[in-house]
Amino acid sequence: MRNHVLITGAAGFIGRHVARRFRDGGWSVTGLGHGTWSKEEARAWGIEDWQAADISFDALSTCEPTPEAIIHCAGSGSVGYSLTNPYQDFHRSTGTVAEVLEYVRLRAPAARLVLLSSAAVYGHGGIQAVREDAPLHPVSPYGIHKLFGESLCRLYGAQYGVASTVVRLFSVYGTGLRKQLLWDACSKAESGDIVFSGTGDETRDWLNVSDAAELLFTAVEYASPRCPTVNGGTGDSPTIRAVLGALFQRLGIGVAPRFSGIARAGDPLYYRADVSAARRWGWLAKVGWSEGIRSYAEWFKTRGS
Amino acid sequence: MRNHVLITGAAGFIGRHVARRFRDGGWSVTGLGHGTWSKEEARAWGIEDWQAADISFDALSTCEPTPEAIIHCAGSGSVGYSLTNPYQDFHRSTGTVAEVLEYVRLRAPAARLVLLSSAAVYGHGGIQAVREDAPLHPVSPYGIHKLFGESLCRLYGAQYGVASTVVRLFSVYGTGLRKQLLWDACSKAESGDIVFSGTGDETRDWLNVSDAAELLFTAVEYASPRCPTVNGGTGDSPTIRAVLGALFQRLGIGVAPRFSGIARAGDPLYYRADVSAARRWGWLAKVGWSEGIRSYAEWFKTRGS
Repeated sequence: MRNHVLITGAAGFIGRHVARRFRDGGWSVTGLGHGTWSKEEARAWGIEDWQAADISFDALSTCEPTPEAIIHCAGSGSVGYSLTNPYQDFHRSTGTVAEVLEYVRLRAPAARLVLLSSAAVYGHGGIQAVREDAPLHPVSPYGIHKLFGESLCRLYGAQYGVASTVVRLFSVYGTGLRKQLLWDACSKAESGDIVFSGTGDETRDWLNVSDAAELLFTAVEYASPRCPTVNGGTGDSPTIRAVLGALFQRLGIGVAPRFSGIARAGDPLYYRADVSAARRWGWLAKVGWSEGIRSYAEWFKTRGS
Repeated sequence: MRNHVLITGAAGFIGRHVARRFRDGGWSVTGLGHGTWSKEEARAWGIEDWQAADISFDALSTCEPTPEAIIHCAGSGSVGYSLTNPYQDFHRSTGTVAEVLEYVRLRAPAARLVLLSSAAVYGHGGIQAVREDAPLHPVSPYGIHKLFGESLCRLYGAQYGVASTVVRLFSVYGTGLRKQLLWDACSKAESGDIVFSGTGDETRDWLNVSDAAELLFTAVEYASPRCPTVNGGTGDSPTIRAVLGALFQRLGIGVAPRFSGIARAGDPLYYRADVSAARRWGWLAKVGWSEGIRSYAEWFKTRGS
């Protein structure tokens, strides 16, 4: 009999890639969450059963069969959104984790939970690669609410034996992503605007969504009440200037991006993952940022066609 | 014109004392929360307007006039409850803080918020008095959810300028309290059972509810976006054996309490507040534990009469 996984937020950018990875790994997949797609589209991503609903104890409880694993991809995905909607962000990011954990505790005690967390829990990173045991000083509502979710996983592990892992994803991107820096940059450049916030010297650790999905798939095996926690990144951290420069080149734009020098609220200067913990799980990112940016530019140019 | 304060959880043991303190200080008082009391009983405690409702953004928004201060006394009040009902405790302790903060941000931006927190945010204390900047390692759901509430206050201060203070109360007690250690001890002793959990050598910092109310009243003045945080205790920490011994004596029980040696889950060994921060606000507890225990025993013997 096939194992069964429940993926919350499965209609989202990361969620659908995770669904496909589990389907390809021989699992049957239920998706739960919001999204405007059809059952057919969901099925194409590997989701046998799509439930459009809020992530609540009751909605989770109606999912059949009881899952062996739950990948909690639901939740808000933007620092900017969280700054203008802190209350909604709290409910999406922390509240949904409380629902999932209570469901596991009472209805699916054998299920292994993987929580998508974020580098934002570290707060403003330094130029050094950040390890999982670094101090946690999130500054945005997004980062704080993600950290609450992590704490709840540890609490449910320690008090009730719920098995989980936390994966702190860095800057996840990939073809099909119609938001965040790369999308905004492509859209701006297309309209002739080549000026970006910040100095361009900021760094990010860009993780291709296929690598993120592979890590989340791998994480299930390591779930335990001790709630092991790993970074999801490449360990490489190009500057924004380098990334947007490469993107512009691939898009055929003859000029280099320019920077206003004014940082956006809540944006950290540097992020680079120490990935030795995930490596010990046998996982390593396969797609470098340069290759990933090339694919993204190609997709952007031909999207919709 | 009188200042107006909104007290959540005003029907609770601490809330009603806080209401009376504000009334005595010349404030008009609205109470919001759960409770089975009548408007008349509420009025006797200083509450001009009692609204029986969940602590929600909508319920808060209907309160008139817009308050100058909010004392958030609502929330769960028991480690034991939180262990068996972690999901409910999360909503009561953290969820209600999210409601109150969003209400202040959007509807009452000039209001000053005082959050009742707990020594439980420290986790297992040592024999030394604990300062507010000590590491925070809560172990119970209760302590973790209280700490989330504190974090939300700091977030709303830093991001949105909401003015708040956090008061970490130690073991609050007083006449009229029909739960927790003193009540249980009196009730057990009355039925002939004199054996208690733990070793008896555990210590607690006992704060009389009148002193707690005075501190919460004082805290309003110090609310700011930096969210100053103070301990509410006496700085004294008798052993449980000493406290129950004194209680038995006052109750006229001719034997000393005995101890099973088996600690209850989530119970820390030692708690003693460093109270220098609250002292700098000009506050100092007036009721020592010995005097407070005497009053409690007197009340227990004559309760209902």
